[in-house]
Amino acid sequence: MSANAKWLNKVKWDEHGLVPVIAQEVGSNDVLMFAWMNREALQKTVELGEAVYWSRSRKKLWHKGEESGHTQKVHEIRLDCDEDVVLLKVEQTGGIACHTGRHSCFFQKFDGGAGGEWQATEPVLKDPESIYK
Amino acid sequence: MSANAKWLNKVKWDEHGLVPVIAQEVGSNDVLMFAWMNREALQKTVELGEAVYWSRSRKKLWHKGEESGHTQKVHEIRLDCDEDVVLLKVEQTGGIACHTGRHSCFFQKFDGGAGGEWQATEPVLKDPESIYK
Repeated sequence: MSANAKWLNKVKWDEHGLVPVIAQEVGSNDVLMFAWMNREALQKTVELGEAVYWSRSRKKLWHKGEESGHTQKVHEIRLDCDEDVVLLKVEQTGGIACHTGRHSCFFQKFDGGAGGEWQATEPVLKDPESIYK
Repeated sequence: MSANAKWLNKVKWDEHGLVPVIAQEVGSNDVLMFAWMNREALQKTVELGEAVYWSRSRKKLWHKGEESGHTQKVHEIRLDCDEDVVLLKVEQTGGIACHTGRHSCFFQKFDGGAGGEWQATEPVLKDPESIYK
């Protein structure tokens, strides 16, 4: 599969050569996480059938689960109307997408009472210490 | 509600003062769209109980549905583990989130056959011409 493939050119990469990516769980439809991909990451995701992101903090490709084992098997890849956001439908190994050991990264819920605050709601399924040795 | 509220300070706004936002439909859990918010947009979303985004192209607040009538009633607001992405759970008026007249903006599906291509899959529920007069 060529890095100059037409389907890769259709994606509108931003000024940093990146595109935002939403990972959604097949079946439950839960939104698991949000990350970024560059051209190579999207190409590798397709080739591997597993999510490969671009880590902006580490400035390198990040094969999700490479350390934790919590890989994401890709069932479907979608592009939005403006062609600048990608949606992955994935099967989440271990049922844990978040580095905190939770199912989803979106575990802080807004509570509008008393001026407003964010409250952690989802259970930690596995101690992060035991995930990342 | 103060613009200096602690809950607004908890969000890690990017270098442009924005945060990525995913809108997900209550019930179906379908991912409807992706957009951006600045501080004022998130504050107004909470005050109004309807999604207000920041339009990067028009450089102004965008009360979703202000033209189309396809507003989004906000049921829940979540923040991710890194506090730099927001997830809205919304009730989508008219069942149409996309400006193309489709339910969701993520209607282009990757087809890996023959070198790869994106194929439009979801039906147009309403002619955009009749949505935007």
